[in-house]
Amino acid sequence: MIKGVLIDLSGVLYVGDAALPGAAEALERLEAAGLPVRFVTNTTRKTKAALLAQLRGLGLPVAAEDVFTPAQAACDWLAAEGYAPHLLVHPGLEPDFADCATEGPKAVVLGDAGEFFDYARLNAAFRAIAGGAPFLALAANRVFKDADGELSMDAGAFVAALEYASGVKAELLGKPAPAFFAAAAASMGVELAQVAMIGDDAEADVAGALAAGAGGGVLVRTGKYREGDETRVSPRPTAVVEDIAEAVELILR
Amino acid sequence: MIKGVLIDLSGVLYVGDAALPGAAEALERLEAAGLPVRFVTNTTRKTKAALLAQLRGLGLPVAAEDVFTPAQAACDWLAAEGYAPHLLVHPGLEPDFADCATEGPKAVVLGDAGEFFDYARLNAAFRAIAGGAPFLALAANRVFKDADGELSMDAGAFVAALEYASGVKAELLGKPAPAFFAAAAASMGVELAQVAMIGDDAEADVAGALAAGAGGGVLVRTGKYREGDETRVSPRPTAVVEDIAEAVELILR
Repeated sequence: MIKGVLIDLSGVLYVGDAALPGAAEALERLEAAGLPVRFVTNTTRKTKAALLAQLRGLGLPVAAEDVFTPAQAACDWLAAEGYAPHLLVHPGLEPDFADCATEGPKAVVLGDAGEFFDYARLNAAFRAIAGGAPFLALAANRVFKDADGELSMDAGAFVAALEYASGVKAELLGKPAPAFFAAAAASMGVELAQVAMIGDDAEADVAGALAAGAGGGVLVRTGKYREGDETRVSPRPTAVVEDIAEAVELILR
Repeated sequence: MIKGVLIDLSGVLYVGDAALPGAAEALERLEAAGLPVRFVTNTTRKTKAALLAQLRGLGLPVAAEDVFTPAQAACDWLAAEGYAPHLLVHPGLEPDFADCATEGPKAVVLGDAGEFFDYARLNAAFRAIAGGAPFLALAANRVFKDADGELSMDAGAFVAALEYASGVKAELLGKPAPAFFAAAAASMGVELAQVAMIGDDAEADVAGALAAGAGGGVLVRTGKYREGDETRVSPRPTAVVEDIAEAVELILR
């Protein structure tokens, strides 16, 4: 019995600058059915506010309180543990850390800084970690589809670089960290075992959620999905469907 | 019976801007004894010519043909395999690749580019590797002692980043790659089993050479040596001595 739904954003609700057909209606159906939803994304190049504006511009009915980002998980972690952030993130994401402490011991927070990954910033983060600062990673994705249509290096490569130099393993806060899925479920007031995850990434979205204990994992054949992705991951998806519309149909049945 | 000697440079013959006491005399003793020598270094921020000028400025009698660098190993590899280099190295090292092919398929060659490691250069190398270019690493050191006395990220961190993003393992050409030690021995016309390596890095120099099949590995207590380094590596050094003078004394006895 599914009592809550986690939905990835890019590749599930939209691709590039266009909402996917039936995405808006699928979200409306979930709301009409009274099923709580959280949108979970590893995108860390823009603030939550900018993300919401983008979704609304695409005609997608997404409420601010339903978007759950790794930056938010990091802010919660920093507040709970008593650290100020040493940020190595895209400038577009920095405002999401505006309410964090600025004094006291620092924890390194690494996101997809893109072109802002340079030697000086990486080495400053390395020295902080080597000096004992906790090391938090908002994401550890290997690659992403860049604006020119080619794959480019994602945050995970730079996590690997800092781990290699420092000998310290990063604590991953985004997908597929079990704690991230659990926190998203908890924010809906339901057990992760009663939650279904819908995503286009067979590994980080679907297998990740199932491994963390989600009740279901539905892989959509949109976005970054490639034929046979479901056979290359463990655990296998609960279901593989055409798109978000079919995923919601399946969950509501 | 030792018939050839491999010697690391920084930390063994000199530290910073000063030759170590007895280093020049030790090299003269080896030459007088007719023992062939190769100087092997993972330093990849300057050309071999610049390195030689530095050594001579320190009063160290080092012949050009006795210096064996990973850049040279890379040039040999590129010529043998029929590739042109896609360089991600420090500009100071680029002249060492001046004689390489410029046309034809490319192989990525990564060295310690220092501040020249930026997102655009790393991503260009990633795309080449993802597109099938062989991936050669001149070194895979984790950290080095920087000009300000603190540790900084070395080439190995960026090798790790590219390996993580591409899923391709780099072929290491510098120490402690067995092929590097073997090629240095071969260039002296002796078997590696008849060669002794002298270094201040218990892992990359001494254990690396022994693991590759060197007849002896002598660790000196100068440079980056820290008390107890010899107990943290496998295989253990054949001998641990004060400095290059004592190492040569031992080998000639």
